[in-house]
Order: sequence, then structure tokens, then C-alpha cells
Amino acid sequence: MRTIKQPNDAYVYTLGPSHPPIAKVAPGETVQIETIDAFEGRLRTDDDLYSQKCPGPPRANPQTGPIYIEGAVPGDSLLVSILDIEPAEPFAVTALIPEFGGLTGTTQTATLDAPLPEQTRILPIEEGEIRLSETIRLPLDPFVGTIGTAPDLESISSLVPGYWGGNMDCVETRPNSTLWLPVCNEGALFFVGDAHARQGDGEITGVAAEMSARVTVTFSLLKERRIRWPRIETSDYLMTVGSARPLEDAARIAWKELIGWLVDDHGFDSLEAYHLLGLAGEMRLGNMVDPSYSMVAKIAKRWISANRPTGDP
Amino acid sequence: MRTIKQPNDAYVYTLGPSHPPIAKVAPGETVQIETIDAFEGRLRTDDDLYSQKCPGPPRANPQTGPIYIEGAVPGDSLLVSILDIEPAEPFAVTALIPEFGGLTGTTQTATLDAPLPEQTRILPIEEGEIRLSETIRLPLDPFVGTIGTAPDLESISSLVPGYWGGNMDCVETRPNSTLWLPVCNEGALFFVGDAHARQGDGEITGVAAEMSARVTVTFSLLKERRIRWPRIETSDYLMTVGSARPLEDAARIAWKELIGWLVDDHGFDSLEAYHLLGLAGEMRLGNMVDPSYSMVAKIAKRWISANRPTGDP
Amino acid sequence: MRTIKQPNDAYVYTLGPSHPPIAKVAPGETVQIETIDAFEGRLRTDDDLYSQKCPGPPRANPQTGPIYIEGAVPGDSLLVSILDIEPAEPFAVTALIPEFGGLTGTTQTATLDAPLPEQTRILPIEEGEIRLSETIRLPLDPFVGTIGTAPDLESISSLVPGYWGGNMDCVETRPNSTLWLPVCNEGALFFVGDAHARQGDGEITGVAAEMSARVTVTFSLLKERRIRWPRIETSDYLMTVGSARPLEDAARIAWKELIGWLVDDHGFDSLEAYHLLGLAGEMRLGNMVDPSYSMVAKIAKRWISANRPTGDP
Amino acid sequence: MRTIKQPNDAYVYTLGPSHPPIAKVAPGETVQIETIDAFEGRLRTDDDLYSQKCPGPPRANPQTGPIYIEGAVPGDSLLVSILDIEPAEPFAVTALIPEFGGLTGTTQTATLDAPLPEQTRILPIEEGEIRLSETIRLPLDPFVGTIGTAPDLESISSLVPGYWGGNMDCVETRPNSTLWLPVCNEGALFFVGDAHARQGDGEITGVAAEMSARVTVTFSLLKERRIRWPRIETSDYLMTVGSARPLEDAARIAWKELIGWLVDDHGFDSLEAYHLLGLAGEMRLGNMVDPSYSMVAKIAKRWISANRPTGDP
Repeated sequence: MRTIKQPNDAYVYTLGPSHPPIAKVAPGETVQIETIDAFEGRLRTDDDLYSQKCPGPPRANPQTGPIYIEGAVPGDSLLVSILDIEPAEPFAVTALIPEFGGLTGTTQTATLDAPLPEQTRILPIEEGEIRLSETIRLPLDPFVGTIGTAPDLESISSLVPGYWGGNMDCVETRPNSTLWLPVCNEGALFFVGDAHARQGDGEITGVAAEMSARVTVTFSLLKERRIRWPRIETSDYLMTVGSARPLEDAARIAWKELIGWLVDDHGFDSLEAYHLLGLAGEMRLGNMVDPSYSMVAKIAKRWISANRPTGDP
Repeated sequence: MRTIKQPNDAYVYTLGPSHPPIAKVAPGETVQIETIDAFEGRLRTDDDLYSQKCPGPPRANPQTGPIYIEGAVPGDSLLVSILDIEPAEPFAVTALIPEFGGLTGTTQTATLDAPLPEQTRILPIEEGEIRLSETIRLPLDPFVGTIGTAPDLESISSLVPGYWGGNMDCVETRPNSTLWLPVCNEGALFFVGDAHARQGDGEITGVAAEMSARVTVTFSLLKERRIRWPRIETSDYLMTVGSARPLEDAARIAWKELIGWLVDDHGFDSLEAYHLLGLAGEMRLGNMVDPSYSMVAKIAKRWISANRPTGDP
Repeated sequence: MRTIKQPNDAYVYTLGPSHPPIAKVAPGETVQIETIDAFEGRLRTDDDLYSQKCPGPPRANPQTGPIYIEGAVPGDSLLVSILDIEPAEPFAVTALIPEFGGLTGTTQTATLDAPLPEQTRILPIEEGEIRLSETIRLPLDPFVGTIGTAPDLESISSLVPGYWGGNMDCVETRPNSTLWLPVCNEGALFFVGDAHARQGDGEITGVAAEMSARVTVTFSLLKERRIRWPRIETSDYLMTVGSARPLEDAARIAWKELIGWLVDDHGFDSLEAYHLLGLAGEMRLGNMVDPSYSMVAKIAKRWISANRPTGDP
Repeated sequence: MRTIKQPNDAYVYTLGPSHPPIAKVAPGETVQIETIDAFEGRLRTDDDLYSQKCPGPPRANPQTGPIYIEGAVPGDSLLVSILDIEPAEPFAVTALIPEFGGLTGTTQTATLDAPLPEQTRILPIEEGEIRLSETIRLPLDPFVGTIGTAPDLESISSLVPGYWGGNMDCVETRPNSTLWLPVCNEGALFFVGDAHARQGDGEITGVAAEMSARVTVTFSLLKERRIRWPRIETSDYLMTVGSARPLEDAARIAWKELIGWLVDDHGFDSLEAYHLLGLAGEMRLGNMVDPSYSMVAKIAKRWISANRPTGDP
């Protein structure tokens, strides 16, 4: 299995069509991608404060990529089956950073209040657990916070989630899931980074347990299969991810896309799908801290199999 | 066990301090409360449309109550342990009603778009399942949509959720959970209604599987224990419910209250609790359709037991 | 001209149908109503802090009323022509109060940030000017912050704006304007208070220049003329007031109601009115600090007179 | 006076650092810039529908630029004094376009409702007036909807407003105003387009009276004067522009920046400035239809001159 790493540690901070690809892969290929943590390895002790060690947005949230997928053209969907996410180091980092987070004034929800104190916390990873404090250990439960394709025409900060994926920060982009991303450029131009050892719903402090990682994925293509927003499929669930502010609009986008999926592929008409989700839909709060918020709409496959006129693509 | 029903079917449409109590109970008492469905029994066939059969807000969402709990005074918390919720009839009702719902223009998110077609659907309940269609049956999974105490001074439509509980429409108010509600008036003045046979996260059509029910609860009091927003406790979880628009404010309220609970009772300081929830918090979307939206913040007890300096109250 | 004052200084803190009327007036009658400032006269020096002197919500924002208008029945509109607003004392009061305001964490936009320092400022009123500081004097420009009718069934805190008027805090409810309010109860049940010596758009600190006042109004009725949200008419403008969160929903409500007015009374079809407002509509930010925010949509009469098939009602 | 036009009509659709400059100007230079309308001249009759004639986002809202300003380096502010905006053709265009606008479901406020009918309307411009219909003529009142500098690192759709300016769609960027923009790249890299013959507050249909234009501006630089968000200065007002969703966050950003300006340059402390804006601030709703909404906070210079310890820069 091939390993892909960012040449010269020249990580990128935008997802866009003009970065030269760092590697080419063929559909069906499984690769192990090396990612660096969201702080680019600069926070290594509790004394390393973000405002002192890191340049700040937009030179934040370093990504590995772009990876060029052969044969991918606009109008296709890129499928990324996430097989494994492994910490590359025996620790994760979390922090409180100025003007960022769910329960504090920010650059967007601007207030005159004094900010929370800045803080860095190194969290040792031992035996499949993350040590938060003397008394609290939480299971390692990794996923990738930022994963996407180059948008159409634009080159957007890796901190932002949107229709191209990006910084969705939703735990569902984890091993044993397949992420569908729209292809907007030839080669798809795939980026990944911001691996999390663990995160709560909403990523409410603004920062998860950030870690460098080895991310093993298999790429494949659904040719001429256009999607408007990212999708995630597991053995048990169909999911869609919407990103926007306010949070209810992120939810609306996700629900509407999920209804569309049920209509297009599972024989529903749109009001039937609306009722099904109204009674059996599930929603995961991805993040409520990034420049757009992300919500994941989910439907368990067992509720739709009876209705399916044809097989899944 | 005593049964409490609304005398003369004179259900109430506001939660407030001026309705005469329909019953008095003592703390520790278990009662079975009869509630009617959110349409007051008026929608019984698919031809019964809401706009024709029901008077509409604010004479909507009929509640049983108020029930006077002896010894309850402002500053106490009322604990409502929900033991059982049983359908009173062999069917539930769902509907699409004008200017209401998550994926349509509404009285608040006002648009010029033509509304969705109005619709009523009677859903038979058979053998622990709700029949949504020929091919789709969903498990019965009851909870109460509206449950609360009279607010302080105000008398508010039963359609609205807030600090007093009310129409939170979150599935967590279900059997095997204990709901904490603030006591703002002597006797607490408890109301309940709007039982749901089942509901998805968000209640996205605006209407769940509405049913008349028998709700078995035990009341108790935490004397001189003031809370600002409702809480829910189960064997495994501590939860708080925030209600507001936009949805991120409902989330903020819930998270902040949960941090407060961890600080007050579980030996955390507030930034430690912020980090714990940032890594291990969970969030349930209650509703994104009511005049205020509701979100439930949750922390699994297993993550906090190591940190607890004293026992639970 | 009759003077109406609150008997026994028993001001009310909710707008609702169950307060006994303090006076009856006939349509066409002009009365002078005495109102007390939003702090009920308790803040009289800079040392009088809100958290110490005032009980806080919901016993806040004292109103004079209700006034019963003879012949008013549900389905009518109550017209309140505001003739004059005069300070009752030679000063106004402004303040920074905890957890309230546009640029600070609040009970709804909940944060962990330390609050702004509490502050009271007495502002002398001299010769038609308000003295904000040694060097800054601003013209007296009075309006009423809270003005409305009893809602249907509910009894709602005077701090809240809504379809019944209430705490809209928009400067347009001033002398030489006529406010239209929906009649939801027999007698209309009119309330007024919270007079402001002056206020900026948005009331961004949370508090305007609050003053006790004498408010001179003439009441009249539009029989069988139902409106959904408040309206304001001046010699030059038609205006509607929407209240909601987030702020864009308050705007949508106001725009949609204004389109409805142009359609119902001025011969427009709805898309024509949409285009007219898109090119010539004006919007005033009322408040962005109250439990719901308020926005005023406005159209200058000179842009619609050519289109008017009949006269104004 | 030099005329600058886009070579080969190769308008650009993103504001970003990688487009080659089309011209270089020196600070102090006055130039006339030719811009094309937001539909790139493709809608010329009422039968030309947007969905048929235009490729849609992100190849929308064509901009003239970038213009390189000699001596501009990151950390400077670029001042753009707008002298004149003249229609280049005797008509403007407005339209209703699918999934766009303030009072309809959109790609962000996603609904299942049927969209409004698509529509194009050519509006003749005659004798300083725009003819909206047989009976309604509105004065020509031009401004530029999109005006900005290249952001730092990112290349963002011209449809989006933000800290770099962009598609703010606020009427204040008009003749006799000076716009301040942050310089994030060497040469500033200035873009302009989307001239409007006229627009109402909010641009509520989604589209103003769009026109091709000749925009006359003078560029100058404030060296080493960093600003976070755009500012506008006229003879009578200081203004700041915030862009975000929800709308209250756009307002918060604008108010906070204006407070910062009053503190930095006009001798205020921050709570004094907060009180001044609370009593005398004004707010203009720019747009409530673009991917971020824009609000303009304003303070009349006459209220601050007494407080000013030094002169204006």
C-alpha cells in the first residue's frame, strides 16, 4: 500500500483548484495518507500558546493534498472509503484560542466581553485512551475533521465547511464509512487533514483532540453522478452533511439533500420522505464553531429497505 | 394508582399561573395522567384537514393540567420521573399543516412561496409498531412533546418551549427518565400533553406521530434547588434542554446549563467542564419547528464519575 | 383632555387579557397617558445599579394599562395616533445591565465570558437635549418603546415584542405617527410604557435613554379590519413591524406584511410589490436586544400613489 | 483621466490574489472604470431568463479587475473615493432568479416549497429615472454592489461579501463616499462590478436594478493603517460594514468595528462609544440575500466632533 505525504511539509491552507497535485491515484486504489495536526505540530507542551506559536487564519489547519484521482471529471462523485485513522504520535492537543469557540464571543458573534483565557492542553494517548485529566480518560475515537475536494473556481480556507466538504468537523467521517464528495475539477483534487483523536458533538470549545495521523482510504468514482452536498454511507446509515449559518439552515440543507437521495435512489416521493424523516430521521451536530456550522442528517437503512425499488448504486 | 384526567375535557392551551388546578398530588405520589393528542382528537381520518377541523393557534396543543404538587414553592425543582407512556387509542396522527414545519415557509421564516399541500395521515398502531405506509413500519417509541410548569407571571402558549419546559418536543422526555422543572409558582402547576408515538430528531414536518395517551409519572421535589432551564436525568446521562432561535442559541443555553450542573454538583471548574463536553458531549436536536427551537446537551455519567467529589443529590 | 394614570402605581409587567382595565375610552377620544420609566423610577443616581434596585425579569418594564376601547372586538384594528410624548422628569436613565445587550453574552446567546461591568447613567434633559457626557449632547427625540394590545389568550412579558406590538423598541412609534394594532380581545386592552427620550437603531446596549412620560394619543377603530402584525402610518410612509429571531426572520415578516398591505389596499399584485420594495423599500432596525428582535419595513407613499386604484382606508 | 476596462471582456468571478492585474495605478490617481452588469449583458429583453442565459454560480457577477495600486502592501488601507457612477446603457435589469432572494426558499434556507416563477424585467432609464412599470418611476440612485480587494490567500466568489468588501450590496458605496478596504496583498488588487441603478434596503428580491456602468474613483493609501472590516466615510458620517449570517452577527461586527474606530481615532473609551451608538447610532440593512448578509453601522460626525482629541487621519 502506497503512503502519500506532503512534499517538503508544504501543507496547504486552502482547498482550491490551483495547487499542484502531490500524487495521482487510480480509482480502487488504497493509500495511506499522512496528515499533520491542525496546529501544524507547533503546540507540543501546555506552554505553547496558539497566539504565540501559530500564524493564525488563514494560514491555519494544514492539509495534505491535493491528490489527483485519475478519470475524475466534473459531474462525477468521488467516494472515499475511510478504512483506518491512526495517531501518528502518542498525544493529541486541545486548546482554547482567542475569539473562537461555541460559548464565547468570536469574530462573527462579536461582543465587547473580555475573552476566555487562552490555554493549551497536551493529552497523552495511551492504550486506546486519551487522558483528559488525572481522573478522566476517554476512548480514542478518531475521525477526520477536514476532508474535501477543490471547489469550483474558488479557493477557500481549510477552516470552512461547505458543499465541497472541507472543515465539517463531524465525527461521522470515520473508519467504516464512505464519504461522497462532488467532483468540481478534473482529478477531483482531494484534500485531508485535521484528524481528531476524539470530539464531542458541536466541537464546542472550538478545538477537538487534534492529532497528526495516518489516514487509510480507498478512492473510487461514481461516474456522471452529481451530488450537491457531501454524503456519508455506512453499512447501517445514509447521511448527508449541510453547512451554513444559522444552524437551522445547515440542518435544512442536510434534510433536503437526504430527501433528494431517498427520492432519486430509493423510490420515495418527496413528501413521503419528509414524513419518514419526520418520524425516524436522526441528526448529528457536527460543529457549531466554524465559519459555517455543519449538521448531519441520517436515516437508518432498515427503515428504507422495504421501499427500495432497485438496489443501491 | 390514581388516574388524573381533565375535567369536562376542558383542556388548556397555555401554561400559566391562573388556571385552577385540576388535582393535587403529594411528592412521592405516582399518578396516571390522561392526555389527548395535539389535535384534540379532531383528526380521525385522512380527510380531516387541520385547517378545517382545528381552530389553530393559540387554541392548539391541548394540555392536561395544571396539577398542584403539595409543598412546592418557587425556588424548588419539580422532579417528574416518567414511568410509562401508553397509547390511549390504536392509532397516531401525523399531518402537514399550513405555514408550519422545518422545510417550508412559515409565519416566522416568512416567504412568498406557495405552501406545501395540507395533508393528514392516520397511522395505525399495531403490535408495538406504527404503520407509516404499506411497506414501512416503525417501532412505537413514545415520549411527551409538551411537559412543563407554569412560568413566572406569564401565561404562554403550549406550542412554545422555554425555561419552564413546555413544547420542547425532544424525545428524551420518555419512560425511564426524570425531568427536572423549575418551580415558579406555589404548587408548581404541572402540565402535560402532546404525547408522541414516535418522532425523528427535529420533528421536521412540524408534526410527530401524535397520540392520546396515559402517562404514568411520579412527582418529587428538590427543595430549595433552583435551576434555570429544564434538566433530564437517566441512569446513564445528565442532560439539559435549551430553547431559543436561532438553533445555535438553543445549543448554547443547553451547553452552558450542563457546564453549570457539572460545576455545581460534580466538582468541575467551568473550563474543565467546557473541555469535557468539547470532547465527549452529545447533543440531541429536539425540534426545529416550534416558535423557539430546542436542543438537548448530554454527558454520559461514566465520563464524570471519576471526577465526582460527592454523591448525586 | 383626560389624563389616565395607573391606579396606585400598580403597573403591570405582562400584556394579557386578564388584567382589569384601568380606564375606558371611546374611539375618537384623545387622552394623555402617564407612563413610568422602564426601571419603575428606581434608578435615580449613577450609584443605583439595576441588579440591586430592580427585581429583574419578568417583573420588569412596567406598563400603564390596560385601557379598554369601547366597541373594539376581535377582528378590528386599533389605531393609535401618537400626538405627543413629553418627559415627565428632567432626566433620562441609561444603563448596562447583566446578561443583556447586543454586544455581550446574554441569557439566549449564552457564553462563558465574564460580563461587562454594570453601570447606570443619569442623563439630564435640558432645553430639548439629553446630556450624554461633558461634551456630547443629543437632541431629545422621544418615542414609546413598548406599546401594544393584549394578545389572544396569552399573557406575555412586557419585554417581548410580537404580533400584538409589545416591546418593539422601534423609534417609529413616535409623535405624528399612527400605530395599527390587532384587536384580539373585547375592548382591545391597550398598554403603553417604556418611553425613550432617544434611542439609536438596534438599542444596542440593551437600554435606551429611559424616561417617565406623558403620552398623548387618539384612539380610533378600523372595524372588521384584521391585520397580522403591527403597522405604522405617517404622512409619508407605510410601515410594518416584524419581530422574531434571527433578525432576518423579523425582516421577512415585516417585508411580507408590507407586500400584503400593498396588495390588499394599493392595487399591487404580490410580485410587483416585491420588486417595488426590492428597489425602493427601506428598513429600520428597531431592536436587536429583546427576546425577539424587531425590524420595520417602510415604503414611501410617493412611490405607490400612482398605483393606487382607490383611496386609503 | 484614464479609462480602465477588462481586456477581452475577460471578467473575473472571484476576488483573489492570483488573477493577473489588468492595470496599475498610482495613489492619488483618478480613473474611470468600465464595469458590466451582474448578468454580463446577457439579459437584454424580458424573455431572457437567467437560468437559460447565464451559467449560474460561481460563474456569476462579473468583476472588472484586479487593479494594482502601486505601493500598497499588506497592513495598509486602500481608500477608494467614489466620484461618479454613470449608466453605460439606457436601461437596467432586474429579475427573480431560482432559489435566490429574501422571501423565498434558497440553497441555504432550503425548503420543499415550489419556487417563485422566474422573471426578467428590463427597466428603461430615462431622464434620471428608472421606469419600473407604467405608473412607477424611481429616481436613479447609483452605487456599486461589489467592490473589494483580494482576500488573504483565498479566492472567493464575487457573490460573497466579507472583510475584503466584495458583494456587500449596500447603497452607501456611492458617489461622494470614500470606501476603506484592507490591503491583504501587494498592490491591493482592487475589483469592482455589479453596479446598481437603484436598490432598496436588503435587496430583497435578490436582484437590484443591475446596470453596466462607468465608475469614476480616486485611489489613495493609508500606509500602515490596518483595518479588519470595510469602512465608509462621507462628509457627515463614519460607517463600518459587517457581513455574516445570521443578520444579527453582521450587525454585531459592524457595531464593534465602529466602536473600535471611535476608540482608536476619536478619543472614546469603548463603553462610552457603546452608549453613544446605543443612543445615536444608525444602521443600514445592506443585503439579506447574499451568502453572507451585510449591515452598515453609522454615526453622524456631528455627534463625535466635540469628543475628538485630534484631527481625522
